[in-house]
Amino acid sequence: MTQKILEVLSGQVIKPYPVWMMRQAGRHLPEYMKIRETAKDFIDFCFSPDKASEVTLQPVNRYDMDAAILFADILLVPIALGRQVSFIKGKGPVLDPLTVNDISRLDNDLTVLEPVYETVKQVRKRLDPEKTLIGFCGGPWTVATYMIEGQGTPKKEIAKRFAYENVEAMDSLLERIADASAHYLISQAQAGADVLKIFESWAENLSPALFERLVIKPTQRIISKVREAGITQPIIGFPRGGGLNAVRYAYAVKTEGLALGTDVPLSDMRALVGDSLALQGNLDPLALRIGGDTLRKAVQNVLDEIRGPHIFNLGHGVTPDVKIDNVYAVIKHIRTGEADYV
Amino acid sequence: MTQKILEVLSGQVIKPYPVWMMRQAGRHLPEYMKIRETAKDFIDFCFSPDKASEVTLQPVNRYDMDAAILFADILLVPIALGRQVSFIKGKGPVLDPLTVNDISRLDNDLTVLEPVYETVKQVRKRLDPEKTLIGFCGGPWTVATYMIEGQGTPKKEIAKRFAYENVEAMDSLLERIADASAHYLISQAQAGADVLKIFESWAENLSPALFERLVIKPTQRIISKVREAGITQPIIGFPRGGGLNAVRYAYAVKTEGLALGTDVPLSDMRALVGDSLALQGNLDPLALRIGGDTLRKAVQNVLDEIRGPHIFNLGHGVTPDVKIDNVYAVIKHIRTGEADYV
Repeated sequence: MTQKILEVLSGQVIKPYPVWMMRQAGRHLPEYMKIRETAKDFIDFCFSPDKASEVTLQPVNRYDMDAAILFADILLVPIALGRQVSFIKGKGPVLDPLTVNDISRLDNDLTVLEPVYETVKQVRKRLDPEKTLIGFCGGPWTVATYMIEGQGTPKKEIAKRFAYENVEAMDSLLERIADASAHYLISQAQAGADVLKIFESWAENLSPALFERLVIKPTQRIISKVREAGITQPIIGFPRGGGLNAVRYAYAVKTEGLALGTDVPLSDMRALVGDSLALQGNLDPLALRIGGDTLRKAVQNVLDEIRGPHIFNLGHGVTPDVKIDNVYAVIKHIRTGEADYV
Repeated sequence: MTQKILEVLSGQVIKPYPVWMMRQAGRHLPEYMKIRETAKDFIDFCFSPDKASEVTLQPVNRYDMDAAILFADILLVPIALGRQVSFIKGKGPVLDPLTVNDISRLDNDLTVLEPVYETVKQVRKRLDPEKTLIGFCGGPWTVATYMIEGQGTPKKEIAKRFAYENVEAMDSLLERIADASAHYLISQAQAGADVLKIFESWAENLSPALFERLVIKPTQRIISKVREAGITQPIIGFPRGGGLNAVRYAYAVKTEGLALGTDVPLSDMRALVGDSLALQGNLDPLALRIGGDTLRKAVQNVLDEIRGPHIFNLGHGVTPDVKIDNVYAVIKHIRTGEADYV
């Protein structure tokens, strides 16, 4: 029993390329909405193993995806650190913005995350052994931006200023996040996750020096702690929007896989990172939303750019307006070379 | 009489690195504000050669910058194409959003741009011959985003969707913008600009296929038209945020200079583009705003990353809150190796 995604992450070229999609378990699926409605709120949903495991499995059941990704959120770690997090409809996550003085007073009650490991166990038990279960956490910088800014902002300017002006406090915050994230990933792996992914969604527009300090170092910290704990599962890094800094990340962080945003020319990235690193990505999610011939061409463009070991995915997440038939079509296109798009 | 910036753009390494700053003529300067107040509005300001030439010269007079950049705006071209453009205090530019049907009805009355050439003439006459006068236009995609969306938006999603869904119309719009921009650059060069720069400020987060279509092709069109007109002035391309697509841009568009946003590791970019292409950038504008030791380190980090022919600059523009003493300090640091930051 082998998992295609594990084979790719060991450096093999597997064709047709295995495929899954970021945020594949989400609002574009009616069966997801049905379960979602039974939860009190989004956080309750994430911490309810029966519900979370059910929606984790849905896209594999429906689409025959090659992987299930744990249904959870990158902002569960701030909750474990004692921060107030709420998800407001139409606005996204809202946190109590962090001050320098809050950092030394952060909680470390990681037991709050335990329902997530129960979800992992339930999913792994029910999932086809040939399918991969991906656990994940947010990248420390990305998580820190939400903790400092209190919400998602386009430029992350408040968090960047915080990082420049409070060097020691920021480094300490990133260490706290990294340590909690390492514990979280270790526990997911022990509960049965086959692969671990680190979502550094806001790796864009950082100077190389800031990127080194805010992204690379804390991520290295996570990975050494995970490896020191004896966890051998492959790890996928996702420094979205990092541009050439993502190449530095590949060499410095040494994950088994590198997930890439929509903007990355895959063949050029391959030339820079060598033959064995598994790449993942990077269909434009906007093309998936638009569908039709736009989507067909976008899928073909990605396929044409792929070199070496590759896992097909989007460059970012599936949005609620995506048509189910188009997700089917993308998968069929990847597996058979053609499909009907709507 | 040689201009250092022209030497760099011919592939020579000049030390200390010549320096200028994007939006160096702007609201952080009291002498700029004094002239600004005498203009009816921002567009009137751009189209008043006496005022525009005065503010163009101010940063060279005050800071001894190695270049003056024409005071104008990338949205003058849409005005020449007959679009309504206004600049609203605290909100930025607002345009009448373009529909597909508007494209074939675009004006082509480029005479409205003539005051800009008069500004160029006045500046070149008054500017030290060893200083470079840089003319510019917006990149076609960046200009198109404003024309389609009616304002600056973080994700340019409306413009990207327009580009996907209206392929022919979009390509035609980009051609119209490119042709007007080529005419505009040719006229600036004929009026005395020593260097021409194309500001593709929103080159980020485009799939390689869209980047090719929306950024590279229309920019190639501008450049061939400029060269066909016998203009030999060097051109600097600025595909800000393009990541690895910026490398494709360097090879495909073949400008003499490549300006880079804050996120680019200069030494890595140098390794990818060869020894002779002049690079420009890429100090974090946020570090300039913060000043002090943050700024000192950020300047030193950029200096340490530079390889080969280089023009020192920011990765984006000077903001109104920047302290004049810190601009002085950056220049002194570059020229003498040290400076006092505030």
